[in-house]
Amino acid sequence: MLERTSGFLLDERKIDALEIGAAILGTGGGGNPYIGKLRAREALRQGFKMRIVPLETLPDDAVVVSLGGIGAPLVSHERIKEGKEGLRCIRALEERLGISVDAVACEEIGGQNAMEPLITASAAGLPVVDCDGMGRAFPEMQMTTYSIYGHRSTPSVMCDLHGNVVIFEHAASEKWHETMARACVVAQGGASTLASAPMSGKFLKQFAIPGSYSRAMALGEAVLTARRAHADPICAICESENGRMVFRGKIADVSRTIAGGFVRGKVHLTGFDQYEGDEGSVLIQNENLVFLRNGAVEVVVPDLIVILDVDSGEAITTEMLRYGQRVAVLALPCHPLLRSEAALEVVGPKGFGLEGIDYRPMCEQERERVAR
Amino acid sequence: MLERTSGFLLDERKIDALEIGAAILGTGGGGNPYIGKLRAREALRQGFKMRIVPLETLPDDAVVVSLGGIGAPLVSHERIKEGKEGLRCIRALEERLGISVDAVACEEIGGQNAMEPLITASAAGLPVVDCDGMGRAFPEMQMTTYSIYGHRSTPSVMCDLHGNVVIFEHAASEKWHETMARACVVAQGGASTLASAPMSGKFLKQFAIPGSYSRAMALGEAVLTARRAHADPICAICESENGRMVFRGKIADVSRTIAGGFVRGKVHLTGFDQYEGDEGSVLIQNENLVFLRNGAVEVVVPDLIVILDVDSGEAITTEMLRYGQRVAVLALPCHPLLRSEAALEVVGPKGFGLEGIDYRPMCEQERERVAR
Repeated sequence: MLERTSGFLLDERKIDALEIGAAILGTGGGGNPYIGKLRAREALRQGFKMRIVPLETLPDDAVVVSLGGIGAPLVSHERIKEGKEGLRCIRALEERLGISVDAVACEEIGGQNAMEPLITASAAGLPVVDCDGMGRAFPEMQMTTYSIYGHRSTPSVMCDLHGNVVIFEHAASEKWHETMARACVVAQGGASTLASAPMSGKFLKQFAIPGSYSRAMALGEAVLTARRAHADPICAICESENGRMVFRGKIADVSRTIAGGFVRGKVHLTGFDQYEGDEGSVLIQNENLVFLRNGAVEVVVPDLIVILDVDSGEAITTEMLRYGQRVAVLALPCHPLLRSEAALEVVGPKGFGLEGIDYRPMCEQERERVAR
Repeated sequence: MLERTSGFLLDERKIDALEIGAAILGTGGGGNPYIGKLRAREALRQGFKMRIVPLETLPDDAVVVSLGGIGAPLVSHERIKEGKEGLRCIRALEERLGISVDAVACEEIGGQNAMEPLITASAAGLPVVDCDGMGRAFPEMQMTTYSIYGHRSTPSVMCDLHGNVVIFEHAASEKWHETMARACVVAQGGASTLASAPMSGKFLKQFAIPGSYSRAMALGEAVLTARRAHADPICAICESENGRMVFRGKIADVSRTIAGGFVRGKVHLTGFDQYEGDEGSVLIQNENLVFLRNGAVEVVVPDLIVILDVDSGEAITTEMLRYGQRVAVLALPCHPLLRSEAALEVVGPKGFGLEGIDYRPMCEQERERVAR
């Protein structure tokens, strides 16, 4: 049994920090958490409690359901949720399986999906576990450490703002689950909420990425502190996340389409400051996937590629990228759970159909750089 | 309780007749029943029993599930079913609802979906009710008398050949059910099987189209008898169905695309024999929807428009229409349940987005013709 007083409660300041941190960890995708922040703040003001409990305190037999929004980020900005989609998902899953959910987990700490579990769990009177399945954002559902390390995410429940409820009772594979749910969310208008089959506390303690909420809030706090001190927020992010700046430049071109529920495209950058004369580019599928310098691959998914406003340090989501923006590109190392062979099959360049691009961990590159 | 000995058993000859009748009632859509016939025949040869029970003998409290294939007819010809999709649908629905199904009903007597209930029911050891929800074929799921007269078809279960199982737990409307299921079947490869929420015997006796199997088999028998007697099968069809021939001509052009799981298009005909000098055309969405003579609308859905080989009287499905084919076009009156105001909203020209085309029942036209 989860103790009712473990962990910590969120307040508006923590939600503000989470917004900033989640946007950075979104690596351009996962939806801008701003609208989610407004919804979370509203829930707090209405009196709902948001409690985050540490992963390691979870009982082995805790019944934990992960959930998040599914769809094209752009749609979720233009069409506001009805609000109780997530709660309906939890209740339908409880009814389908005859279970009682103990806690909610986050699928994806990057972007709007950092907020969704908080909002739903607070309405359900449940705590949220301090963990997630990505340590960032990814565009597809099977791209979680949960699925990668053996969790079967069906039966799952998808709810939309119209009141439609779909149960994915059994999927031939995690990828099939994604394929069917993606088709269904497009039919529902492009932005729904999905809760996956429950996981045990024991499984999560082994295979979830730990401390995701604490980390995102610390990252946001670092940015807020730097801003207050008129220090460089970009340095603060790199320090907080052990990352490095790889480019500063002006956006010279953005090609972007929405197809099959995804935002896909490419951003071209013309360097300035120490990168004067260099060309940068970033390939995107909802998130930033690959950074190239003068045509040569330099940072590759699952390591995090973040595009920020060069002055404010504010993360820019892929759908907000515009010609003329002056940006910095940061590279942050991903969690080791995403770097195993099994994980790279799913969330490495191969998982995104990026032929001819190999993953080389940022940390290795760093070590070589230091050795030289 | 349904009596185990009521109704009649099918044999291969009846299946042959059903194939011919169902193809004609398919009005170009519903999939060519040929492959379904082979599957049904194989089941008979393996020893499965196919029993058809009259609609009027159903107990009021009988639990009846209607089912059928969903997807693009063309796909179901090129990719053969695994075979037990329908049975998995029934079992998943029974498990979801905690019920025991008494009998299977047909969604759509036209085309391949005439065979699917027989194959599934025989495997489940259940009878098939002599009725359907269309009296023909229609391209969308909400176009049944079941839905039109108030049955909510969710929770429903959709199964594909990969083993995927999706439960449409609740749909905001019958049209939403169709929209989501259609998106999902496209994701599953374009041809799956769907079983809808159970109906009571009482409901069916009021709102199902009665005698669909008997009628389709009688129609097929009439064609077989005419062929054996070297008589004109087209006359035999018109007599059996109280219809009339509206055109004879050569196909001069076919425009046809597959989009969103549907076959859509238009067929142009150049008249011969008594129609020499006339132009005919047929608008299609999986089925033949409108017949125009020299640009003027003459027969409109839900009345049946059938295109047949002019010599053999064999029905030609929309995906088999080719330049140069010599065809006859028949018009057959639809069942009165499809002609109510409520029905025409769904299965009349408006239901298909055919702006500016009004439905005028064939029988009225006939009466005027006789009066003149």
